[in-house]
Amino acid sequence: MAVIDINADLGEGFGIWTLGDDPALLDVVTSANVACGFHAGDPLIMRQVCAGAVARGVTIGAQVSYRDLAGFGRREMDVAAPELTAEVLYQLAALDGIARAEGGRVAYVKPHGALYNRIARDRVQARAVTEAVHAYDPALPLLTLPGSAVYEVADGLTIVAECFADRAYTPAGALVPRREPGAVVHDPETVVERAVRMAVEGTVVAVDGSEIALNARSLCVHGDTAGAVELARAVRSALHEAGVKTEPFA
Amino acid sequence: MAVIDINADLGEGFGIWTLGDDPALLDVVTSANVACGFHAGDPLIMRQVCAGAVARGVTIGAQVSYRDLAGFGRREMDVAAPELTAEVLYQLAALDGIARAEGGRVAYVKPHGALYNRIARDRVQARAVTEAVHAYDPALPLLTLPGSAVYEVADGLTIVAECFADRAYTPAGALVPRREPGAVVHDPETVVERAVRMAVEGTVVAVDGSEIALNARSLCVHGDTAGAVELARAVRSALHEAGVKTEPFA
Amino acid sequence: MAVIDINADLGEGFGIWTLGDDPALLDVVTSANVACGFHAGDPLIMRQVCAGAVARGVTIGAQVSYRDLAGFGRREMDVAAPELTAEVLYQLAALDGIARAEGGRVAYVKPHGALYNRIARDRVQARAVTEAVHAYDPALPLLTLPGSAVYEVADGLTIVAECFADRAYTPAGALVPRREPGAVVHDPETVVERAVRMAVEGTVVAVDGSEIALNARSLCVHGDTAGAVELARAVRSALHEAGVKTEPFA
Amino acid sequence: MAVIDINADLGEGFGIWTLGDDPALLDVVTSANVACGFHAGDPLIMRQVCAGAVARGVTIGAQVSYRDLAGFGRREMDVAAPELTAEVLYQLAALDGIARAEGGRVAYVKPHGALYNRIARDRVQARAVTEAVHAYDPALPLLTLPGSAVYEVADGLTIVAECFADRAYTPAGALVPRREPGAVVHDPETVVERAVRMAVEGTVVAVDGSEIALNARSLCVHGDTAGAVELARAVRSALHEAGVKTEPFA
Repeated sequence: MAVIDINADLGEGFGIWTLGDDPALLDVVTSANVACGFHAGDPLIMRQVCAGAVARGVTIGAQVSYRDLAGFGRREMDVAAPELTAEVLYQLAALDGIARAEGGRVAYVKPHGALYNRIARDRVQARAVTEAVHAYDPALPLLTLPGSAVYEVADGLTIVAECFADRAYTPAGALVPRREPGAVVHDPETVVERAVRMAVEGTVVAVDGSEIALNARSLCVHGDTAGAVELARAVRSALHEAGVKTEPFA
Repeated sequence: MAVIDINADLGEGFGIWTLGDDPALLDVVTSANVACGFHAGDPLIMRQVCAGAVARGVTIGAQVSYRDLAGFGRREMDVAAPELTAEVLYQLAALDGIARAEGGRVAYVKPHGALYNRIARDRVQARAVTEAVHAYDPALPLLTLPGSAVYEVADGLTIVAECFADRAYTPAGALVPRREPGAVVHDPETVVERAVRMAVEGTVVAVDGSEIALNARSLCVHGDTAGAVELARAVRSALHEAGVKTEPFA
Repeated sequence: MAVIDINADLGEGFGIWTLGDDPALLDVVTSANVACGFHAGDPLIMRQVCAGAVARGVTIGAQVSYRDLAGFGRREMDVAAPELTAEVLYQLAALDGIARAEGGRVAYVKPHGALYNRIARDRVQARAVTEAVHAYDPALPLLTLPGSAVYEVADGLTIVAECFADRAYTPAGALVPRREPGAVVHDPETVVERAVRMAVEGTVVAVDGSEIALNARSLCVHGDTAGAVELARAVRSALHEAGVKTEPFA
Repeated sequence: MAVIDINADLGEGFGIWTLGDDPALLDVVTSANVACGFHAGDPLIMRQVCAGAVARGVTIGAQVSYRDLAGFGRREMDVAAPELTAEVLYQLAALDGIARAEGGRVAYVKPHGALYNRIARDRVQARAVTEAVHAYDPALPLLTLPGSAVYEVADGLTIVAECFADRAYTPAGALVPRREPGAVVHDPETVVERAVRMAVEGTVVAVDGSEIALNARSLCVHGDTAGAVELARAVRSALHEAGVKTEPFA
């Protein structure tokens, strides 16, 4: 029986501002990437999302980021390694403490935005992140892109690849960059079909028509628009109808 | 044999900016109140101070604060209780995770600046703080002012009073407010004498000449000026010469 | 012919986060209180709102605030007067420069949230704000609450009172505090009727049934919910139907 | 008669934290690059530095930066051009308003740290900066590195090159990168000699021994250490003794 995890970003409001529909997403995902206050999220939001996740049996992950509220963590920053390690450790520990106060715990780490992309190709920052996880709890897996530079510096850490049903893939298994045409799959039915195929067969059809194998234990969905939540729901339903079990990876 | 703890604020730089002489203070104190990033301190500074504390056997406390870098946590803020609880929990957990990565742990909590003063008289904010400590680890003591409103909302939490050798006391055992003349004792010799008396006899002479009993297990010293560090050293030496054992309270 | 200004808060997003419907509100108001980056607003949002205001002939005001993004400027802070003056001056100048780059200019100042309420009763902070306006441009009027302490420290500055069609008034002409029952008028028709009466007759019926005179040159409307924008539109239409001219006060 | 400007970074504290000796530097420089709150500086510090500059006849420049207090503006950031333009405009306007309140005005713009270096080679960000200056006041010159990409996108703006007596130069007239050996000239006497030669002859000896021509109207000195201030004083004295007139460039 096929098994896959569904993860999404949650808790990405700040103060008075909201982003996405956290309660709705908590009913779809099996793993919640909870923002830790550096690109979004504040302590109260973090606590509320953790409470909601624990109540629904959703696994909590630390969505660590560059310190950049104004840019939502989407701008690459040349942060020195010791500082980046300390910042990741800080965020991870803060969320874990809040999760534990709600009866849960942080079970994995998923870097956010520009940091996620940077460590897919920059070994220095990748190692800075893995060192933070090692220092906090080497048993925590790190959720990342297939082929990420993180694999090269894992040093014993468990690295888990995720896949994206709404993104086009190159024949080499990489994501087509967003700035290129066709990078994002917009048709909901196609997204759902791709998600099921990813989970059941472990494959995706690349932009050149070739079928490539994915080794992804988790499927990333989005929730920052109303349509996105409905699409996430449709993906989840289709997976269940196809006999796929949705289950946290961590 | 008399025993007392010496605590001071540490790790109060931010980014490029420094404040006080952390290495020098770490050689004086038995307990380090480490800033957690809300009024001062950043993750790297927190990690460096924790490493220094662990290396010297100094106990680590979480110096939690209002979120106010621009005001160094010295301005009272009307933060709603659920938010304040979450903010204290966040800071406490972040520092504890960093301390553990360095082989230590947070052993107590000491609110900083305006929050410290506010919870001495405001039961709502005091309870917000104690709830955070309860939620994280009810075994952690809270370091506070004698007579603080925190005692009234402790709900089983251990509350530890501290004393100040360089501050004048009212006959009722409260500190003379800083804005009043004579609030601060400036003469170093007098400060040292008062510190020894506080530790050995558990008393201080109030502004009206009466002797009052203190029930303070910890003595707070300062380190944000060169003279302050020397005075802290003199206090420590005088305590040892008077046969007082300096030892963490937590 | 009766004349009134309609003002509302605009530009209160931050980075990725939005709040309210700025384009819709710009079609309703005659004066836009533009957030200046301290409680909300970032330079790009400020520029976009100023461009929209200039395009529609809407007057721009500086919605200055305490430095508190996490609390949206809604928490009172004990900011020292020289610092508060400098902070208001900074925000005012920043917005004015941006407005001028778009062909407009800041024509008035309206303090936001907790600062607005604090200076209604605290002469020290009130003077800190008026000193900033004096230092920047003494010709700029300050928009405030009737009976505010700002009047007492105006020192030649023009103080303009605003009124609220959706708030209950005491017989003395003050707003009924939000925490009291009946403080907010929820029925849209009643709000519209009150707005027209405020503009045409310059009066409002207080909670005890007595009619009181208002001396308010500007009417504050809200826009942070869809319903609020529609209500603001209805108020504007009703004012025009009643023969009231809506026109900036500054 | 040779004429040169001496510029230095000022106002780089934040809240309780200080950096450098502003009053001492104000007695040395003819132009003060005043931090505008994004990498350092807060409104009160900005006001105090402007007051000091006006009192001494020192010209005020806007030291604009990436929004990065935690990294002191020293980390390159991929800020989108419209946002960067708005951010520079915001900082420039804020400082100008504060300077005018003190009887001065912003007379030039000097980007700080990572932004300064980035725009020396990145035309997109360079143009984002020049557009901000154009939008605010096209008469304001921009102080930058010789050979900077800013020259290519000036679009009518006055670009002024500065030189560094304590930095090694390549035969092509570029600075030797800091990470290379010999990049910084440490010997005070040599620094003073180079400064005089730069001002009197307009030349410097490059790392290969060749003499190269500089076209620098301003000399940058540093002030963030006690030794630096003394060196800056020595440079100024030597310039005067050599018959060089120190005078603002803007």
